[in-house]
Amino acid sequence: MTRAPRAALIATGDELVGGAFVDTNSGALARRLAQCGWETTRCIVLGDDEDLLTATLRELAPAHDAVVITGGLGPTLDDVTRHAAARAAGVELALDARVLAELQALFATRQRPFPPSNERQALFPAGAEVLANPQGTAPGFALTLGACLVCALPGPPREMLPMLERELVPRLARHRPPSSGLAQRALYLVGLPEGVFAEQCGAAMRRDANPLVGVTAKNSVLSVSVRARAASVPEAEALAERHADELARRFHAHVYSRDEPDLAQVLGRELLARRIAVTCAESCTGGLLAARLTQVAGISAVFERSFVTYADRAKTEELGVDPALLARHGAVSAEVAAALALGAARRAGARLALSITGIAGPAGATADKPVGLVWLGRAFDGAVVTEQRRFLALGRDLVREFAVTAALDLGLRALVPRPH
Amino acid sequence: MTRAPRAALIATGDELVGGAFVDTNSGALARRLAQCGWETTRCIVLGDDEDLLTATLRELAPAHDAVVITGGLGPTLDDVTRHAAARAAGVELALDARVLAELQALFATRQRPFPPSNERQALFPAGAEVLANPQGTAPGFALTLGACLVCALPGPPREMLPMLERELVPRLARHRPPSSGLAQRALYLVGLPEGVFAEQCGAAMRRDANPLVGVTAKNSVLSVSVRARAASVPEAEALAERHADELARRFHAHVYSRDEPDLAQVLGRELLARRIAVTCAESCTGGLLAARLTQVAGISAVFERSFVTYADRAKTEELGVDPALLARHGAVSAEVAAALALGAARRAGARLALSITGIAGPAGATADKPVGLVWLGRAFDGAVVTEQRRFLALGRDLVREFAVTAALDLGLRALVPRPH
Repeated sequence: MTRAPRAALIATGDELVGGAFVDTNSGALARRLAQCGWETTRCIVLGDDEDLLTATLRELAPAHDAVVITGGLGPTLDDVTRHAAARAAGVELALDARVLAELQALFATRQRPFPPSNERQALFPAGAEVLANPQGTAPGFALTLGACLVCALPGPPREMLPMLERELVPRLARHRPPSSGLAQRALYLVGLPEGVFAEQCGAAMRRDANPLVGVTAKNSVLSVSVRARAASVPEAEALAERHADELARRFHAHVYSRDEPDLAQVLGRELLARRIAVTCAESCTGGLLAARLTQVAGISAVFERSFVTYADRAKTEELGVDPALLARHGAVSAEVAAALALGAARRAGARLALSITGIAGPAGATADKPVGLVWLGRAFDGAVVTEQRRFLALGRDLVREFAVTAALDLGLRALVPRPH
Repeated sequence: MTRAPRAALIATGDELVGGAFVDTNSGALARRLAQCGWETTRCIVLGDDEDLLTATLRELAPAHDAVVITGGLGPTLDDVTRHAAARAAGVELALDARVLAELQALFATRQRPFPPSNERQALFPAGAEVLANPQGTAPGFALTLGACLVCALPGPPREMLPMLERELVPRLARHRPPSSGLAQRALYLVGLPEGVFAEQCGAAMRRDANPLVGVTAKNSVLSVSVRARAASVPEAEALAERHADELARRFHAHVYSRDEPDLAQVLGRELLARRIAVTCAESCTGGLLAARLTQVAGISAVFERSFVTYADRAKTEELGVDPALLARHGAVSAEVAAALALGAARRAGARLALSITGIAGPAGATADKPVGLVWLGRAFDGAVVTEQRRFLALGRDLVREFAVTAALDLGLRALVPRPH
């Protein structure tokens, strides 16, 4: 079995290394590279430091089949990627007349003078191939350091992502060592603790296992990866697929998707496919559930309105929750969750209504209703279901995220029942 | 001027290097280290690979005053941090009897058998100091590699963050080289393009400037950092403060905070301090604005309810928007934005109401109403203001984020006017 081609990723920017912003490019690159059968050995975030970037490139190139750099291609003095790459390759920078002319033409259309600093963006290491950037003024470039392909892409994700597909992926395909095969499959689970999953998977999660199963928990969703190695890509694909099928059977009560990590998108797809109108009634989540559902493009075909009823009075006035019910059981109760769902369904004229009422914290807890206690309600064609959850009190934001995930899952199970 | 102490950060985990999850620990560490006067030179994400982590530690230690590792302290076989640190230091692993007894006691309280794999969590490099983890089963540790302080902390942020404060910060303070001074200040701006800011700052953004100004744009908010170096921390503090004051004066029309990056928290604070009841009427943002406001702990004192009126019919039925107005001007118009804000204020009995109606895309655009066109409305004590925005059509999620930022700003300007 030959090894998979290896890549290292470098993200540059003082704002990244200083923690002001999170580098999302490396994650997107690593996921796409894995799909192409590449293994990412490390992601390195550096400040805008030409010496350090030069040294890092020199060090990584001999041990990798490719190094991808994002950022540092702008027009200003702290954009040092092209200089560092040229130094690492031992070549000069050369002005690309065609790129310069294009940049000047771009500024002319906008009727703005061409700033001399932008001329910097037409400089490339001698011998490098220019990678077009249709979304911005910073072209990328590709060159080789020994046997290593070095590609530099701009930092803004909306510029980087199209270039990843158009420029990087084809070059990686041409550059990969022969007859190595790596393939990956995913499964997305809800409602299962990570530890329980890991226990049942056992040896398949050991580093040397093939296929190798990995799992990460986030907002009570488990993202499971199955990575297989074989002598060729098709063999690796078949191996990964077989093992993913087996896991899907074993954990069928929890698997909500094999291609879409976002539970809201999965529910949205089902609602749209069957033209089922949906609405929400939210207390502690304050609109987050509706915001998630309306992230789904085209959802307006089934989503007309939603209700954020934070205070008791709002629950009564907007959704007709009986004040006596609130007085007797409290707002965080099965009875009120049911009344909220039924009230929202009626008021919106929707077949499906989801409700959330809980104690997100930090305040609001009582002896018998701790922070993290959430009641969920679902009304579907008049049939009401409620569920109680006791989430770990890991802070207001997380309790709200957990509650939204659980409500989306409750909704999805109305449409795609899973045995429990 | 002496140099600032230098730190390198390592985050471990196959799920991080593979792009399944984003490493947020390194950013949190880098921000806190900067406050303590430390400079972070790089953040490295590695898979669960003992050899690579060992080699990386050996390489980083001589060039840094501290290396902080997060992750890899769990009980399973892919948790390799303690083994790698011991190898890099050239020492054996030793079982800590007190930690083992504590772990066993913890499992006993939960009336669960003690899994042998958890014994691994009582192993530490010989000579290392154990760092208590009150939030989980994985203690951290600290040791020195030559003159370099190496601290290992658990990966889950809710465990890592308290240990950062309680264990890491005091050790960094003791470990810092004498008489070096680095200080940082922040400013948060809204409504100003990054390029305009950068042009006006000029030389202060050059890498060698002191103070050095950095800027990053996200969701139409600019996070500006001012970093100063001096012979001592107090001198650096004074220098950073002076320069931040000057920038705050120069950009006073845009500065909404000097301590809180989150515009929703800034608005929430003002509303709570003055007990001003608030509500929202959202079309294209579908609850996102209300969700942001209800992230603010304690907001229930001023937030009772909110309205997601996605469809025209919902705007009329829930908030009394005249169907004739919708027919004449369309839902995305100044008139409807105003009617939504007034209707929401009246219905919720709130002094302040914010409305958003726009074309988030991908569908819904017309010749004169492109994707990215958003009308915002504000009703404050009966006085109505509307604003039109034309955001770059960078995708549905971003247009919605831009719109929420602009609406929060419109609300904040009602309470804290800024000259325009």
